[in-house]
Amino acid sequence: MANIKTVAKHAGVSVATVSRFLNNKDYVSQEAKAAIERAIKELNYRPNQVARSLTTKQTNIIGLIVPDITNPFFPQLARAVEDTALSLGYTVVLCNSDEQEEKEKLYIERLRQTYVAGFIVASNLISEQSYLELNIPVVALDRKDNSQLPYVSTNNFEAAKLGSAYLIERGATNLICLSGPQNAGTFAERAKGFEAAMTDNVSYRIVEGDLRYQYAFESTKEALAQDRTIDGVFACSDYAALGALKAIQEAGLRVPEDVQVVGYDGIELGDMVLPGLTTVAQPVYGLGETATRMLISKLEDKEIQQTRVVLEASLCVRGTTK
Amino acid sequence: MANIKTVAKHAGVSVATVSRFLNNKDYVSQEAKAAIERAIKELNYRPNQVARSLTTKQTNIIGLIVPDITNPFFPQLARAVEDTALSLGYTVVLCNSDEQEEKEKLYIERLRQTYVAGFIVASNLISEQSYLELNIPVVALDRKDNSQLPYVSTNNFEAAKLGSAYLIERGATNLICLSGPQNAGTFAERAKGFEAAMTDNVSYRIVEGDLRYQYAFESTKEALAQDRTIDGVFACSDYAALGALKAIQEAGLRVPEDVQVVGYDGIELGDMVLPGLTTVAQPVYGLGETATRMLISKLEDKEIQQTRVVLEASLCVRGTTK
Repeated sequence: MANIKTVAKHAGVSVATVSRFLNNKDYVSQEAKAAIERAIKELNYRPNQVARSLTTKQTNIIGLIVPDITNPFFPQLARAVEDTALSLGYTVVLCNSDEQEEKEKLYIERLRQTYVAGFIVASNLISEQSYLELNIPVVALDRKDNSQLPYVSTNNFEAAKLGSAYLIERGATNLICLSGPQNAGTFAERAKGFEAAMTDNVSYRIVEGDLRYQYAFESTKEALAQDRTIDGVFACSDYAALGALKAIQEAGLRVPEDVQVVGYDGIELGDMVLPGLTTVAQPVYGLGETATRMLISKLEDKEIQQTRVVLEASLCVRGTTK
Repeated sequence: MANIKTVAKHAGVSVATVSRFLNNKDYVSQEAKAAIERAIKELNYRPNQVARSLTTKQTNIIGLIVPDITNPFFPQLARAVEDTALSLGYTVVLCNSDEQEEKEKLYIERLRQTYVAGFIVASNLISEQSYLELNIPVVALDRKDNSQLPYVSTNNFEAAKLGSAYLIERGATNLICLSGPQNAGTFAERAKGFEAAMTDNVSYRIVEGDLRYQYAFESTKEALAQDRTIDGVFACSDYAALGALKAIQEAGLRVPEDVQVVGYDGIELGDMVLPGLTTVAQPVYGLGETATRMLISKLEDKEIQQTRVVLEASLCVRGTTK
């Protein structure tokens, strides 16, 4: 099998030159480049990534940290990250923090030991400071609007306000907002957006908790048991909105006639249920793609115009509103 | 920072002994082991995985190849693989083949270059021979029943027969089966199970295609446009069953009164839609966990009792059948 020595010999250059070429670090003449490229092709040489990692202290592996891969938003996001990474020569290690700080830390440590190139972080548990201290590129995805890390997100506040205002516009007068964990900046922003949309003639309540399907189902069930006149639900994730939908329908109420529901995310699933879910649709694929391109630009020392990108979410009206 | 030399000095043993200890290969005396463990702890030494990979030609990375992470079956499977791997000291690289042979090959090659420890393959595109030739441990997951590779699957034929027979038992007389790609052994087995359940007094048709939501939606829509008397749909995946459900409901037919539907997989989503999906439920988490334990046993040269595990799927009756 071809190795760096046989490539050097075939190309008529030194091993050091081939090494410089492979690591893309220092100057290699055009002539040497062409000879090496020809030799690599003719010998069908494949650089040993592990050996290169030892020299460069870097791999082409990106760690993607998500809070819960079974929330259907994250597979769509992961798919976008992975597609983009693959097309740019990187592979993605999927890390599911399960919303546990210890698990997230364990992943970070383990990947650091294998010289992971950088992280895309879509969870909210660990402080930004911890990520900043890693001294490798990190991009925050759908995390906080006011992050110190480079980030990609949607305009959480404005978009949630838009979705909530639509419930009122369509006649809701007694609303609840299903919000996420308090430590998650994203959801705090969305809850604030909900609150900002409320007018004097409506009553409302914010239910804090987590945004898993089961939790949203239980919370909505409980809220309806306490107050049967609730006629509008704004859920800070589509996954939670699906839980709310099920609770409303199980309570014998009709959607949208008795209770209207608006979600947030724009996952494909929202179109699969009946009635289809009205939602604040994030450009899910675009979020993942943008974050990945941003991270890889950082890894390759390319200039990045923007290190804070806010994509616009928009209202997608389906059957859960009047 | 501590390195292998400082650990050896601190423990009063040779560098070679520490190396043997770390690579878990050859004999190290109990006394030396204890001294090295103490030194590692006291010095807070973290083995450099990359350097170890060069020696052992192996990492603690597992490649998980799935056909489509946006099909909700696979995140649940990936979650199980990742949980199990993490608890046993491995990390998972998620590879989304997108049902493209070229993409699957690219992933395999790229991971081979980084000394991936082994693969779990849940896609059906590349021949077993190609995987066998990799000369590293590979476990097939939810792939073919008659695989030459070690595999974990459910009893596709019998389970599909059970679900299809239930449609007839509940009164369906004109059925279609939404089957998957012909090259996917799993789906061929399920379609055969469907066929075996058919009795003399019913008519039926097998629709071959892919099992994505959109495709199943279109196929069912077309089938109903041709023949409005179809009263039973057996879908070889839950994702496809959801597409069928939407098409039936959009055609103005009632589920289960006019058309009954049975899926296959047992994803959480089946419980979230209304009516809840009757399905042949695979033990999804168990599939992922078993495959991962099997692979890791192989990686660590532990004896494996069974290299072919068939888990039992069972009928889960909800609201899409009478």
